[in-house]
Amino acid sequence: MKPNLQSKFFAEFLGTMVLVLMGCGSAVIAGSNGTTGVGLLGIAFAFGLSVVAMAYAIGHISGCHINPAITIGMVVAGRMTGKEAISYIIAQVLGAIAGAAILLLIASGKQDYNVITNGLGQNGYAEASPAHYSLLAGFIAETIFTFIFLLVIFGATSTKNIHGGFAGLSIGLSLVLIHIVGIPVTGVSVNPARSIGPALFAGAAAISQLWLFISAPVLGSILSAVTWRYILEKE
Amino acid sequence: MKPNLQSKFFAEFLGTMVLVLMGCGSAVIAGSNGTTGVGLLGIAFAFGLSVVAMAYAIGHISGCHINPAITIGMVVAGRMTGKEAISYIIAQVLGAIAGAAILLLIASGKQDYNVITNGLGQNGYAEASPAHYSLLAGFIAETIFTFIFLLVIFGATSTKNIHGGFAGLSIGLSLVLIHIVGIPVTGVSVNPARSIGPALFAGAAAISQLWLFISAPVLGSILSAVTWRYILEKE
Amino acid sequence: MKPNLQSKFFAEFLGTMVLVLMGCGSAVIAGSNGTTGVGLLGIAFAFGLSVVAMAYAIGHISGCHINPAITIGMVVAGRMTGKEAISYIIAQVLGAIAGAAILLLIASGKQDYNVITNGLGQNGYAEASPAHYSLLAGFIAETIFTFIFLLVIFGATSTKNIHGGFAGLSIGLSLVLIHIVGIPVTGVSVNPARSIGPALFAGAAAISQLWLFISAPVLGSILSAVTWRYILEKE
Amino acid sequence: MKPNLQSKFFAEFLGTMVLVLMGCGSAVIAGSNGTTGVGLLGIAFAFGLSVVAMAYAIGHISGCHINPAITIGMVVAGRMTGKEAISYIIAQVLGAIAGAAILLLIASGKQDYNVITNGLGQNGYAEASPAHYSLLAGFIAETIFTFIFLLVIFGATSTKNIHGGFAGLSIGLSLVLIHIVGIPVTGVSVNPARSIGPALFAGAAAISQLWLFISAPVLGSILSAVTWRYILEKE
Repeated sequence: MKPNLQSKFFAEFLGTMVLVLMGCGSAVIAGSNGTTGVGLLGIAFAFGLSVVAMAYAIGHISGCHINPAITIGMVVAGRMTGKEAISYIIAQVLGAIAGAAILLLIASGKQDYNVITNGLGQNGYAEASPAHYSLLAGFIAETIFTFIFLLVIFGATSTKNIHGGFAGLSIGLSLVLIHIVGIPVTGVSVNPARSIGPALFAGAAAISQLWLFISAPVLGSILSAVTWRYILEKE
Repeated sequence: MKPNLQSKFFAEFLGTMVLVLMGCGSAVIAGSNGTTGVGLLGIAFAFGLSVVAMAYAIGHISGCHINPAITIGMVVAGRMTGKEAISYIIAQVLGAIAGAAILLLIASGKQDYNVITNGLGQNGYAEASPAHYSLLAGFIAETIFTFIFLLVIFGATSTKNIHGGFAGLSIGLSLVLIHIVGIPVTGVSVNPARSIGPALFAGAAAISQLWLFISAPVLGSILSAVTWRYILEKE
Repeated sequence: MKPNLQSKFFAEFLGTMVLVLMGCGSAVIAGSNGTTGVGLLGIAFAFGLSVVAMAYAIGHISGCHINPAITIGMVVAGRMTGKEAISYIIAQVLGAIAGAAILLLIASGKQDYNVITNGLGQNGYAEASPAHYSLLAGFIAETIFTFIFLLVIFGATSTKNIHGGFAGLSIGLSLVLIHIVGIPVTGVSVNPARSIGPALFAGAAAISQLWLFISAPVLGSILSAVTWRYILEKE
Repeated sequence: MKPNLQSKFFAEFLGTMVLVLMGCGSAVIAGSNGTTGVGLLGIAFAFGLSVVAMAYAIGHISGCHINPAITIGMVVAGRMTGKEAISYIIAQVLGAIAGAAILLLIASGKQDYNVITNGLGQNGYAEASPAHYSLLAGFIAETIFTFIFLLVIFGATSTKNIHGGFAGLSIGLSLVLIHIVGIPVTGVSVNPARSIGPALFAGAAAISQLWLFISAPVLGSILSAVTWRYILEKE
């Protein structure tokens, strides 16, 4: 029996919840303690290993997109209907909000934590970029990183690739890679849901920058789907 | 010939011994040296790689639970009898105690080591939390982290998942992930045996907090088993 | 339908672009911030995970060489024609230049970035070696590291190796390994294209040292192909 | 056609050469630079990833022991003849010496390097232990770590384990684990050849301590073989 839409919806909800809780959680709870924290490399592994973990947990149920940019890319690549995609995206955004809420609950258990000053792992550009990279650099980085991320997803899950079992691992490790490089630029989104969740709790500044973390990943995803369909695996 | 109960018992004993000796050992022996130690990220890898190592070593013998919360979850999910579970849990607790004892023996080979002041990698909340997170935060974190951990275990070992070979790797890496995020909160248990072993040697304070590291992981495990059985893979 | 030459060319172009953008990008954007950056270990993972990611993305299209030394080694080992190799190498060098150009574009989004003083992740020996290793040490290291890298590639992709699915992972992790050891010596090339791309933008000094990062990797690759063909798997 | 003894000999020689050159090389070249080096975690990954790399490179030729303790364990477990084992061990020790020699050659390319003061990644106990652990702690640690290492090797390569492709990965990651925990105690040997190679160049003190790094790993290996044969997988 194939998984029904309700199972898929709940799987995408839980998967995105885990990605935001654990990815952003690594930054909020464990990342920023200087030499005693997990550091940028630890945060990078947290985001990527969230995908590895969820890929082998729910991949056989929903495909484990847990990212609206991936879902949109799948539609553009002709692998998914628009109707199912909408259900996926709703589940992902709700899951991201739930993940951010749980993180806020746990983080608040530390006396000196304050969501406005400490943040909730939200993304940002210009003055809100971790290393003060410009809006343009942020937009280019998010677009290209998502383009690369989707290349790995399309290739690793291609029916022409006989090593499909490695998809979850290689896709997750490619997200580790993207975070190793990109955290100083924007904190790395490549996933609109991952940006929306924390921003809702982090305040108006984060919300006002959400447009970039929605548009750039979607643009990168579409470019990747087109590249894949018309150049790399054209019929 | 299938592995008999004695082989399974000894496998669970050895596996849990390795998890506690190496996981807690990374913190006690190598972790807390500031910039010259392995840091939080190294400790996180030690716990998770212990599971990866043991999963491929004894997985085909006992299933490599090495964690009473997993064993209880398997009973709730209908994958194991209660009778066999009791034997597993006894082996796990004895193995954890053995692992803690061996660690104490090795650690004592350093002149300035003292189990009371340096600890043995035990878990804690409130004043005993590494970053002074509250009891409530500790309880929520342990419950949700175990819930997530068990999601990966149920999904990666599901008969509907065709990539079963990756179960040991993805489950172990999900434990790396949980430690990357959670060490500042409680030191991360998600495993009653892993908490009991070191606490017995670390003194009355650690023992007095064991109730949380037994009840929260068990609660998270049951929630995950129910979620899995009635929502994600309901028949 | 097998991938045509155009798909292979574009796959090698994109793969090498990703390797240079992400590998060198980790050093330029995230690496050199002291305790707040990803450090040498993070840079090592960036280079290796670029290969893991691309191996499962484009391996089934072009074989994912993304390195002229590998392509030359494949010719010497009798696995590829010289004509196809030339097309691969052109794609790789163009991809490396594109990757370096994109990196320069993103890096320039940080106000205090200057390509001459901050560099672009180029390789170097003697006074340009990160830890001032001599020309001879650099040449020996690049030759032997490439020899080792190609040993893993030949063995992991051998038709006599039944675990071919692990090739991308083990080859990528061997590149992590080589960078863990070798960054202080030359920054690690083992790949002429990876050296050429950044050097073109980094100035005359980097260009004047390119000869070593072309000749040593090619020498190591040929030695490895000969070792493999006439000793390890001789007929 | 099966690999002949000459191919196996050369494979074991090269594999052990790589393990010593890259493992010890990570410590000598990249490890000890405080916050700018790869740190203990980087060294741990170097040793373990050397095994991952070599396992998929030469595993199908020689089984990739690259460690006399493993070869002796295989004899005790009844998986190998004593005659072939002697040939393996000779190859491993020669390979380790070659690896140490190459490392010395590269390291000497840095002006302020001195093998006596900087060492060559040799193992040590008591006053020669990195964190001054006692002889007894060193002996216990090396014995138990080798026991654990061999448990993973026997289990992951067991004919009863259907996930044999993961053997190289899980065995290599278990060596990462052992190094994360044990470097402060002895620098971690669990492999007589790995200790002999660097000691020959590092001076009389290192040579005088070799007895421990030969006897303890061999003891741990025999204990593991007996445990495996008579308890975990008894017929």
